[in-house]
Amino acid sequence: MHTYRSHSCAELNKSNVGDTVRLSGWVHRIRDHGGVLFVDLRDHYGITQVLCDGDSAAFAELEGVRSEWCIRIDGEVKARDESLINPKLPTGEIEVYIREMEVLGSAGELPLIVFGDQEYPEETRLRYRYLDLRREAMQENMKLRSDVVASIRRRMWDTGFREYQTPIITASSPEGARDFLVPSRLHPGKFYALPQAPQLFKQLIMVSGFDKYFQVAPCFRDEDPRADRSPTDFYQLDMEMSFVEQQDVFDTIQPVIAGIFEEFGGGRKVDAEWPQISYRDSAMWYGTDKPDLRNPIKMQDVSEHFRGSGFAIFAKLLEQDGTQIRAIPAPTGGSRKFCDRMNAFAQKEGLPGMGYIFWRDQGEGMEAAGPLAKNIGPERTEAIRQQLGLDVGDAAFFLGGKPAAFESVAGKARSVIGEELNLTDKERFAFAWIVDFPMYEADEETGKVDFSHNPFSMPQGGLEALNGDPLNVLGYQYDLACNGYELVSGAIRNHKLDIMIKAFELAGYGADEVHKRFGGLVNAFQYGAPPHGGCAAGIDRIVMLLADEANIREVIMFPMNQRAEDLMMNAPSDPTSDQLMELGLRVIPRED
Amino acid sequence: MHTYRSHSCAELNKSNVGDTVRLSGWVHRIRDHGGVLFVDLRDHYGITQVLCDGDSAAFAELEGVRSEWCIRIDGEVKARDESLINPKLPTGEIEVYIREMEVLGSAGELPLIVFGDQEYPEETRLRYRYLDLRREAMQENMKLRSDVVASIRRRMWDTGFREYQTPIITASSPEGARDFLVPSRLHPGKFYALPQAPQLFKQLIMVSGFDKYFQVAPCFRDEDPRADRSPTDFYQLDMEMSFVEQQDVFDTIQPVIAGIFEEFGGGRKVDAEWPQISYRDSAMWYGTDKPDLRNPIKMQDVSEHFRGSGFAIFAKLLEQDGTQIRAIPAPTGGSRKFCDRMNAFAQKEGLPGMGYIFWRDQGEGMEAAGPLAKNIGPERTEAIRQQLGLDVGDAAFFLGGKPAAFESVAGKARSVIGEELNLTDKERFAFAWIVDFPMYEADEETGKVDFSHNPFSMPQGGLEALNGDPLNVLGYQYDLACNGYELVSGAIRNHKLDIMIKAFELAGYGADEVHKRFGGLVNAFQYGAPPHGGCAAGIDRIVMLLADEANIREVIMFPMNQRAEDLMMNAPSDPTSDQLMELGLRVIPRED
Repeated sequence: MHTYRSHSCAELNKSNVGDTVRLSGWVHRIRDHGGVLFVDLRDHYGITQVLCDGDSAAFAELEGVRSEWCIRIDGEVKARDESLINPKLPTGEIEVYIREMEVLGSAGELPLIVFGDQEYPEETRLRYRYLDLRREAMQENMKLRSDVVASIRRRMWDTGFREYQTPIITASSPEGARDFLVPSRLHPGKFYALPQAPQLFKQLIMVSGFDKYFQVAPCFRDEDPRADRSPTDFYQLDMEMSFVEQQDVFDTIQPVIAGIFEEFGGGRKVDAEWPQISYRDSAMWYGTDKPDLRNPIKMQDVSEHFRGSGFAIFAKLLEQDGTQIRAIPAPTGGSRKFCDRMNAFAQKEGLPGMGYIFWRDQGEGMEAAGPLAKNIGPERTEAIRQQLGLDVGDAAFFLGGKPAAFESVAGKARSVIGEELNLTDKERFAFAWIVDFPMYEADEETGKVDFSHNPFSMPQGGLEALNGDPLNVLGYQYDLACNGYELVSGAIRNHKLDIMIKAFELAGYGADEVHKRFGGLVNAFQYGAPPHGGCAAGIDRIVMLLADEANIREVIMFPMNQRAEDLMMNAPSDPTSDQLMELGLRVIPRED
Repeated sequence: MHTYRSHSCAELNKSNVGDTVRLSGWVHRIRDHGGVLFVDLRDHYGITQVLCDGDSAAFAELEGVRSEWCIRIDGEVKARDESLINPKLPTGEIEVYIREMEVLGSAGELPLIVFGDQEYPEETRLRYRYLDLRREAMQENMKLRSDVVASIRRRMWDTGFREYQTPIITASSPEGARDFLVPSRLHPGKFYALPQAPQLFKQLIMVSGFDKYFQVAPCFRDEDPRADRSPTDFYQLDMEMSFVEQQDVFDTIQPVIAGIFEEFGGGRKVDAEWPQISYRDSAMWYGTDKPDLRNPIKMQDVSEHFRGSGFAIFAKLLEQDGTQIRAIPAPTGGSRKFCDRMNAFAQKEGLPGMGYIFWRDQGEGMEAAGPLAKNIGPERTEAIRQQLGLDVGDAAFFLGGKPAAFESVAGKARSVIGEELNLTDKERFAFAWIVDFPMYEADEETGKVDFSHNPFSMPQGGLEALNGDPLNVLGYQYDLACNGYELVSGAIRNHKLDIMIKAFELAGYGADEVHKRFGGLVNAFQYGAPPHGGCAAGIDRIVMLLADEANIREVIMFPMNQRAEDLMMNAPSDPTSDQLMELGLRVIPRED
């Protein structure tokens, strides 16, 4: 017999009755039922009930065993009494009578109970991550993550992609976040950088003629920690293709992502249709570039109904340039109580409040209620109702000003309204491609034009478009939103050096600087660069959505804490003076 | 029609004759045959011959095109004349008559020709890697690497393993090489380390109850560059299992590795039997712990035949403690010319020379020739011949002294003899598990005992064995050798804290230091650690063997050069003063 086990703890059933077996695992629970010790023995695969009565040679030793000890037992499989069968457990038909046992690894007093769902502070969970990870929910999350990543790879291979590994200790990458640096020992005083993303390398792979690339790529950004962001390394499904346009990238990646959500979504509906929404429409309709389309509410511009109306605040507002009145329709929200609650929400978010109208049945017909309706009169109120397609029992909320100032609150209000009115279908994954991102934006104070997103994207209209107003130039750049999260981001790249130089010039960068900062790519583009494009999908975020977790640390095996520390392994830590010497570095003493 | 292509450059054949098609790719070669331009158009998938005659609208533009320009063409597929069909090319039945063309990316003068096999200095190849990678051999190597890694993953999944990702920005790992450090911005003056291997984390994953783990893991060692070593990051197939003994690990990984070599070995024979050879036997028989078993030569201890013999040098040598005479049998090497050449080889390697005997046919019977044979006389010579199983036409070489002093040269001589006599079968992959590594070794000068390999391995015989002479303790530690390379290394781990503390004590480390240096693991082992073990296989080396390449940079997409620099991307480079300030670091000026 094998030294440690003849079966896993999920394997035995009625067909094994009478067999002598050997199991190894952890003591999940141990109970003394009148001189008989019952142990739920757990391994990665499942739980088997094993028991030991007083006349077993193993009894004395088993009495000393506590939760989470790792033990091996030998014993005989017996059928459970009909009344004791546990149909929820794959091994619920049997139990094993212990003849002999061995302690493989004992355990001290536990800082964290594995059995059950007791909550612990994050610091405890991370410091004793090896215990935390034994808990059922964490085992499931880690298996899910592993299976998702495996499935992503299978799907990419099946789509004709090969995975190529790009350097990790490399040069700074221009992704906009802070680089992690790695001091060089062979070149003291010089530093490598860890890649924020393999963007430049995947473009070089295209220039090298590989046609289709993907990588489940580790990425590194030295950013301040957040619940949905790892403060050190995280993984992206990174992909790139040559000889493609934007729609080709969509057609390639959609089946992969949809397939993953169908495979691991636990039966939640996966929308088959992924609308393409322009960046500007998304801001207008949803107040964000990552809309949650499970929520059917679509905001609308209703400025015309307020221009010159009796509602002086809005009417005056509209006399200023660039202002707008936006309506958030709220079907079934037609009660004063609900409207007041939403108004209070807006005030909490720092706005003076949200005006509202709601429509109720007045016996002889519909009545529009709320102060706004009175101020603008029945005709305008009715026109608004018609535009928004609302009816008795519904409401609408109104925000005014410069869109940039109210859009984000409007987006939040839309979410809260969708949630509160149960309009948002939780059992669903709703996707949308956000397209036509503006290439440039002007600084509100200085008016200085800079790239608004990725400077390496191809401007729509090419070189010609760059001769007009930069703020009107759109890029072949896109995001995929799912349930309110940005899941994928990508672009058709600018592979034409003349267009790239011009594009940077508009943002105030001279050709010299472009050559200096992005020399690797710029040089490569001088030797027959193909048109290419691609995208990157956040693996951690996909797994979070599938596992229905709000914190990224629930889907990472050994995450850092919120201060970017690993207290279990003691990182970061003080270097030795020899290490610093070899690297040619000195630590500047801190002024406390 | 698609903007860039209706077909790849490997797709068209007779069935497409008459079709109007669109192709995109690079100009592999362009020739002018009497007013007709012939272009071999190449993409990732293959080559198609396209041509353009003077009356095509595209002719003038195509005349300006040079090698490695990226172009799109539209044209009509025509069958080639029977006499012009190229059966070696999948598209060799057809050619495409260009009607229209577009330059997608032009190219300047090439520092490196893609077509053909011209050799270039490594610096040129790495600086223009995107051109180097377009060459057929590099395309094949990269595809091979990608396919090998994909197949490894498939095989591990099929064996019941899941891949779990371990942290990359983390704490120092005790692998014996130098760490790469990463300064922390949030904790100025403190440093993270990049993992030399995920050893500690995979052990923690076992303590966390995951049972089977693998990862195609990036590893980082700050070592001086070598032909078969990447100076920065490299990849290992890292795996670990719980509740296993050494043989279980072998039984698990052998089918995976053998399967890879069968799948990608290009028909070379893959030995089905993988002998287990003790570390001591391997040193005795092969002079190394990474024997090349394609070479059938097995060295032997022949000391007894020389003790008190007439060959005074060896006889005297043997009077010293710890000395030995080792024979290298050389079947079919029985000529003075060959023996003298081998003797010269030994002298070049720094030895005084190798004694030899060779056996030749003298008409009336066998004669043992060479000075050694005369000195020790016919009886001893014959006994040696019998022990080594040699015959007429064979030879044997002899080295004497302390094995540590001559073993490595003996191993080299064995290789050279195998090569020169054509005994080594090149069309074969021969594997051997090297087992029973000694846990400790004594410093030759100080006599101080230290770990000879991995301090985390379980000593054979457990705690008890550690009470005897440390130099006699063997570990459950193993390597897999293939064709003279170390391919895999692993161990059954020491999961018992008392044995670990004792093992470190023998090497001069107190319990306090063990707790301090390996606190993460030591703490974890106090909460029910399972027995576990595993191994790691070098991916780059596997691909090198399969691709028959001697330099690791031939199987890595974007390798560093031998000075650990990336001249294409300019890494490492000077940090900005802001970066240093944020990290709380100062660069020490170099004294030149």
